[in-house]
Amino acid sequence: MASASCSIPLSRVKITSEFWVDRRHAIRHGSLPAIYEQMKLTGRWDCLKLKWKPGEPNPPHRFWDSDIAKWLEAGCYFLSSDCDHQLADLVEEAVSNIRRAQQEDGYINTYYTVVEPSKRWTNISWSHELYDAGHLLEAALAHYEYTHSMRLLDPLLKYIRYIGSVFGLAEGQKAGYPGHQELELALLKTYEVTGDKALLELANYFIEERGQHRPEGHYFDIEAEARGESPTPGPAPRDAPRYSYHQADRPIREIREVEGHSVRAMYWLTAVASLARLTKDKSLLAAAETLWGSTKRKMYVTGGLGSVPAWEGFGPDYYLPNETGYLETCAAIGLVLFAYQMLLISPYNNDYADVVELALHNAVLVGVSLDGKRFFYDNPLATIGKHTERSTFFEVSCCPANVSRLIGSLGKYIYTIGSDGAVHVNLYISSTFDIKQSNGQHTRMILESNGPWKGGAKVTLAGEAGSEVRVRLRRPLGAESFRVEGASQGDYDGVDVEMTANSSLTIHFAYNARLIYPHPLNIDNRGCVAVARGPFIYCAETIDNPHVADLRSVRLSQPLEVTEVIDEDSFSEWGVKPVVLMVLASLVHPETHQVQEKTRLRLIPLFMWANRGRSDMRVWLPVTNPGETTRSDRVMK
Amino acid sequence: MASASCSIPLSRVKITSEFWVDRRHAIRHGSLPAIYEQMKLTGRWDCLKLKWKPGEPNPPHRFWDSDIAKWLEAGCYFLSSDCDHQLADLVEEAVSNIRRAQQEDGYINTYYTVVEPSKRWTNISWSHELYDAGHLLEAALAHYEYTHSMRLLDPLLKYIRYIGSVFGLAEGQKAGYPGHQELELALLKTYEVTGDKALLELANYFIEERGQHRPEGHYFDIEAEARGESPTPGPAPRDAPRYSYHQADRPIREIREVEGHSVRAMYWLTAVASLARLTKDKSLLAAAETLWGSTKRKMYVTGGLGSVPAWEGFGPDYYLPNETGYLETCAAIGLVLFAYQMLLISPYNNDYADVVELALHNAVLVGVSLDGKRFFYDNPLATIGKHTERSTFFEVSCCPANVSRLIGSLGKYIYTIGSDGAVHVNLYISSTFDIKQSNGQHTRMILESNGPWKGGAKVTLAGEAGSEVRVRLRRPLGAESFRVEGASQGDYDGVDVEMTANSSLTIHFAYNARLIYPHPLNIDNRGCVAVARGPFIYCAETIDNPHVADLRSVRLSQPLEVTEVIDEDSFSEWGVKPVVLMVLASLVHPETHQVQEKTRLRLIPLFMWANRGRSDMRVWLPVTNPGETTRSDRVMK
Repeated sequence: MASASCSIPLSRVKITSEFWVDRRHAIRHGSLPAIYEQMKLTGRWDCLKLKWKPGEPNPPHRFWDSDIAKWLEAGCYFLSSDCDHQLADLVEEAVSNIRRAQQEDGYINTYYTVVEPSKRWTNISWSHELYDAGHLLEAALAHYEYTHSMRLLDPLLKYIRYIGSVFGLAEGQKAGYPGHQELELALLKTYEVTGDKALLELANYFIEERGQHRPEGHYFDIEAEARGESPTPGPAPRDAPRYSYHQADRPIREIREVEGHSVRAMYWLTAVASLARLTKDKSLLAAAETLWGSTKRKMYVTGGLGSVPAWEGFGPDYYLPNETGYLETCAAIGLVLFAYQMLLISPYNNDYADVVELALHNAVLVGVSLDGKRFFYDNPLATIGKHTERSTFFEVSCCPANVSRLIGSLGKYIYTIGSDGAVHVNLYISSTFDIKQSNGQHTRMILESNGPWKGGAKVTLAGEAGSEVRVRLRRPLGAESFRVEGASQGDYDGVDVEMTANSSLTIHFAYNARLIYPHPLNIDNRGCVAVARGPFIYCAETIDNPHVADLRSVRLSQPLEVTEVIDEDSFSEWGVKPVVLMVLASLVHPETHQVQEKTRLRLIPLFMWANRGRSDMRVWLPVTNPGETTRSDRVMK
Repeated sequence: MASASCSIPLSRVKITSEFWVDRRHAIRHGSLPAIYEQMKLTGRWDCLKLKWKPGEPNPPHRFWDSDIAKWLEAGCYFLSSDCDHQLADLVEEAVSNIRRAQQEDGYINTYYTVVEPSKRWTNISWSHELYDAGHLLEAALAHYEYTHSMRLLDPLLKYIRYIGSVFGLAEGQKAGYPGHQELELALLKTYEVTGDKALLELANYFIEERGQHRPEGHYFDIEAEARGESPTPGPAPRDAPRYSYHQADRPIREIREVEGHSVRAMYWLTAVASLARLTKDKSLLAAAETLWGSTKRKMYVTGGLGSVPAWEGFGPDYYLPNETGYLETCAAIGLVLFAYQMLLISPYNNDYADVVELALHNAVLVGVSLDGKRFFYDNPLATIGKHTERSTFFEVSCCPANVSRLIGSLGKYIYTIGSDGAVHVNLYISSTFDIKQSNGQHTRMILESNGPWKGGAKVTLAGEAGSEVRVRLRRPLGAESFRVEGASQGDYDGVDVEMTANSSLTIHFAYNARLIYPHPLNIDNRGCVAVARGPFIYCAETIDNPHVADLRSVRLSQPLEVTEVIDEDSFSEWGVKPVVLMVLASLVHPETHQVQEKTRLRLIPLFMWANRGRSDMRVWLPVTNPGETTRSDRVMK
């Protein structure tokens, strides 16, 4: 705990990576306008004007405020790096709408102001009321960081003070906590910027109170009873685990397994880890680490989470079905947030940065099309005969704006600052970073990476002569033969180097296609492998393999024979020239069960699929197996 | 088609098999009273008294009539073989209730008489109105066959005449057909008993009209528009395929693949095959055979159907996931009905009787507990950490009474009569069968089987000297070394023998444990096998294997080392002494991935699981694989 790192301000990083400049361009000029258009069309954008009247069609939904807030937050992140008057005008319009929607006492919530004004705080277990507050606070914080104006943060802090007066264990307060976690992490982020202890205390209360069974009952039941409902209330998905759907079955330190709704769980654990770091609470850190381990056992090979669609959440350990998997884009985003908090706590444990890198390049990025305008909500690792395509929007539209704000804030994941002032390079994404050292010296780190398609990078320190910076260079995900020129070998996971101004370091590592084998309990994928290269998990898409009638009939040759090809053409429309993999495979004839002629299968990075029309896809692919010759006398089913 | 067989009257078969006498006893004295009790408690039993008034709680549901009808039908089947005054009184009470519920014009339907009286025939795509009629008709037919009284059949025939006046292509008629198929098969069954051509014609109309897109539109859309609803109306499950959920996307002869809701599909294909047999329509038979092939490609190893819970139905070919599979008990019952119709058409194609035998002993029987009092609605082939137990009833309670009526009518599946008068032995279930020959001679066939736990059987023909009966002795499912003593060898699937009165034939065959390998496209089960013996598919249940922490960590030894044990104790409470299988296996340590010490795994027939408390279960079990040694340097997920 003594060595906990800290975040860096977004404005001090400028991303230069060709790959990421393009991805961010797609978000900025594809997603943000597309989401705005959809919000205008559906009535979301203007709902904060509070014009809706009972009896009118299209009443505001419980989560609309959060949709606006996430878009606003994303917009502010992009404005932090690039001036854009049109976007800035829309951001300020949204800010004005939120300000105008605030009630006398500080309350801000469209739904409970115009649709059910008498029901405020009566259903926090299912209503998303505190969740909306959290997203509004995050948006206000992003707005403050970009504008240095308190125009939105001031009203939000007033709202938070009001929430703090409503919730708590004192006489006359409600002993409740968010039904959908989010506010907790927003409070802690804001505390780190403002230093206002009341925010820390409110977050601490929410986290400690969650899952308590008081003599007077579980808060969700007390609340349901007050509404005249049964003690298992709300729109609980069929068969969803009671309380643990909300991670509220027991207090945090007694929970051994991550269960229930994945996004709720990840936002919650992000806040738990953040609180543990800020308070140096060892038992809370132990709880976060326990649940990190549990999360890893339930994580898909792409960093996706959620194997059970019924409750958009977790199943048993290593139960990771392909076609029926849920893998909500937002859950992967939540995992990045959680992993990032763990990385701040334990910067020398590469596991956390590995998961950030994995989820970001795969489970998150697959949620948005290459042009930024279409989205996946759930991301199963295989489809059969569905000929899937992405959607322009969803009724519950959390994912599109959530991807936008994560990619908008990408800079802060690249670098973190260790407790000794060292710059930790977590992601090898070409960028510059203005380092403000404790001695007041300004230096600039220039990271030039060959990634993501090629290994190797160079780090240069520019600045006043004599200035020194300690740098932690991590071995990135999927890197082979990691070595820093001139540096003595560090541990397997990276090296620490002292850099002086105006010097450079060359970092050598290679990306080669590698096979990932399923865990022994992941028996849905027994006899299959996933193919990866660098940070990317690859898949076979039907559109690339018209000679394969059914992707399930493929048998990759063992040992894998693979050729790497830079594809200049297929995705040129979107400026991406990926390394695609041509692998040798056999095809099994579905009728005769005979292994047919050898063929080559084209694999592309998962995040690139479903951009060229309706298609099917498969990540885990069967391998030929010397122990399983095809015998025609076998009974087959 | 020339060689089509026919059914036999239930009253002429008496089942003597110890195994099946026990199972039928559990249904008769466990299920029927339990279902009756639940129907009384929930208001179903008395709903036909039409006492419910608008505004009162607990309104009758759309499908309640069918619940009563199926129970009534089952009761009549049991009364056909055994006198039972108490059951007979309840049967007559139900008959009286149905008679009293009939309206002036012949109409019988609780829901549309008391709940929505103005909505009759406005929503046949989703309302179960014609489905209820079908079950009532089947009940009436069973009642007639048991009592030889028309007390229920007469009112039902009046109702059918009324339905025939409402539906059709004539001016003023509705060009509709059942949203949930059932009435079609009931009409054809009744036609076979009464010879009333109007029933055949109405069934023919429903089958031919289904899926037509008339110039004025698809009937489901016309109906929805008349209700003021959108053209994709009703409680359609999310993502359910439009029209094909109901098998109504195209006319029967144009459909190449069985899709949508499994129970609907099986009832429909039962009627299609039945109509093809009765009309000798070759193109209709070809359609039935095409869809039989499609059904087989979507059938689980147990005879279960339905891999997609969202629409309780079919997914792509060979997509047969375990934990998320639906395998509704009613769908397996429907498969038995469909296979039986195909068996009547092509009695020398063993495939059909094989599927009857498979589904009956596995996918159907697993739906009811050994004491007959608890039920499964869906029957996935594996559970993890759910510690499943059976339910006493369901809100939608089609399965319990459906199992009861199938087991009640078991006798008719054992024997069928070929077009040449030959007796076909389809199932080796000990029983006697009174044969009425065309020359008026009476003979009795006595079938003494060692099954289901042991192979081998004996057939004796008793009767007047000189009488002769041709007998087709089929090779039963899972039988090895099938041979009939004294008979010259027939084809692989069975032999035909001429038997004279007062002679016996000994039929030799052996049951040994056998392995079933997954189809190459069934890659969820790659590297796994299912273990079977005789008609039974086996499973590992956690309660039998406390030394195995997780059934997914099991690796069966190859070649399989298996010991057969007669278990005298575990199930003695229910009178079953099964052959259980002890198989040699290794366990993989989930952390180290090392194969640990050899152990023995206890396997029981699938239908016996979940009778001894909460448990988990798995049918497909991983095998050790010489080509896949455990390597610790592999990346696992």
